[in-house]
Amino acid sequence: MTPVLTGFADSPDRGRGLARDFRVRWACAEAGLAYDTRSVRLAALRDPEHRARHPFAQIPAWEEDGLILFESGAIVLHIAETRFGLLPADRAARARAVAWIFAAIDTVEPPVFDLDLADILDRDRPWHAERRPILVERVRRRLGDLSEYLGGQDWLEGEFTAGDLMMVTVLRRLQGSELLGAHPSLSAYVARAEARPAFGQALAEQKAVWSAGRDAGP
Amino acid sequence: MTPVLTGFADSPDRGRGLARDFRVRWACAEAGLAYDTRSVRLAALRDPEHRARHPFAQIPAWEEDGLILFESGAIVLHIAETRFGLLPADRAARARAVAWIFAAIDTVEPPVFDLDLADILDRDRPWHAERRPILVERVRRRLGDLSEYLGGQDWLEGEFTAGDLMMVTVLRRLQGSELLGAHPSLSAYVARAEARPAFGQALAEQKAVWSAGRDAGP
Repeated sequence: MTPVLTGFADSPDRGRGLARDFRVRWACAEAGLAYDTRSVRLAALRDPEHRARHPFAQIPAWEEDGLILFESGAIVLHIAETRFGLLPADRAARARAVAWIFAAIDTVEPPVFDLDLADILDRDRPWHAERRPILVERVRRRLGDLSEYLGGQDWLEGEFTAGDLMMVTVLRRLQGSELLGAHPSLSAYVARAEARPAFGQALAEQKAVWSAGRDAGP
Repeated sequence: MTPVLTGFADSPDRGRGLARDFRVRWACAEAGLAYDTRSVRLAALRDPEHRARHPFAQIPAWEEDGLILFESGAIVLHIAETRFGLLPADRAARARAVAWIFAAIDTVEPPVFDLDLADILDRDRPWHAERRPILVERVRRRLGDLSEYLGGQDWLEGEFTAGDLMMVTVLRRLQGSELLGAHPSLSAYVARAEARPAFGQALAEQKAVWSAGRDAGP
């Protein structure tokens, strides 16, 4: 049976690959794995049908041979462990790549997401102007550390892995910002990832899903 | 060679098991895995020696047979994958348990941590009183979903797994709060985990590390 990926029908990012289902599409494209798409509208996230797939009423969800998975990190890791192309064969290198999946989600994404969210939800709040520099500083520190670690390497652990995939999806939220622009090596890292054929294929699929959702109406 | 866990010498939680190295100690205790402890002081996190182990100058770090790992989720998963007692043998059940590791870190912890951090760092900021209810609401929603999923089960996926271990360490940050108290099933879930012999052993080890760090002075 073909696996089924559930993602947003009407992602606020208009299909630019910033929603978390994109990570799974990209992983599938890297691994050459075919899948079907189920789209759920933002307004239907808390419907019982979707919550049976995702306890926290989010996206993405993944169904494969009776297994239902949620959390983009877990799904990407599952795909990486069961197909070729996203994790090194060497045991230690594999564990390091997995560490970068967690670092992307647990260490780099939270401050990036907080800043993004504050700029959207809190922009008219009286505290935003005073709080924003604190949030910016948190992002700046993470990017500085990441940039220092990456150095002149193409990828975080030699070859491209699921860890790079996850990290790049986090950094793309900062594209065009001075924060990312301050680190040419990180901008180049993102560009290098975006130049991968699998990335292009996944982005085209993501845009098609968004267009179909828009055309279907609310 | 005995693996080495790097954790805080002077954790602000005074050894109560709220720092992220505790997750690794607990996982080791569940798996019956012996390890050595290296303690790093908060003030020394950015020293080159520690940053060689952890690119983001955090704890925990893990060294085993030449492999250096960082990120508590990655280390716990590594231990769970290479020893018995933290992941089910069945492939699908295993993938679900891993999904809960990610859910703990990626979905439940961020709002819990944000609230905690705001209560500590922002308590005197002018915006705290107005912003706090928003943060509380985010935590409340996650706990509601988690409690609904757990229902009358002892553990998230039948037997105790690394997913429960991670989730409980997140929930323990809320112990004694009305937020957790509003869900007797979640309080009981935490108590059930804390009653495990391995938890007790790990907590005693964590307290001993903190006491040693205090006695050694700054």
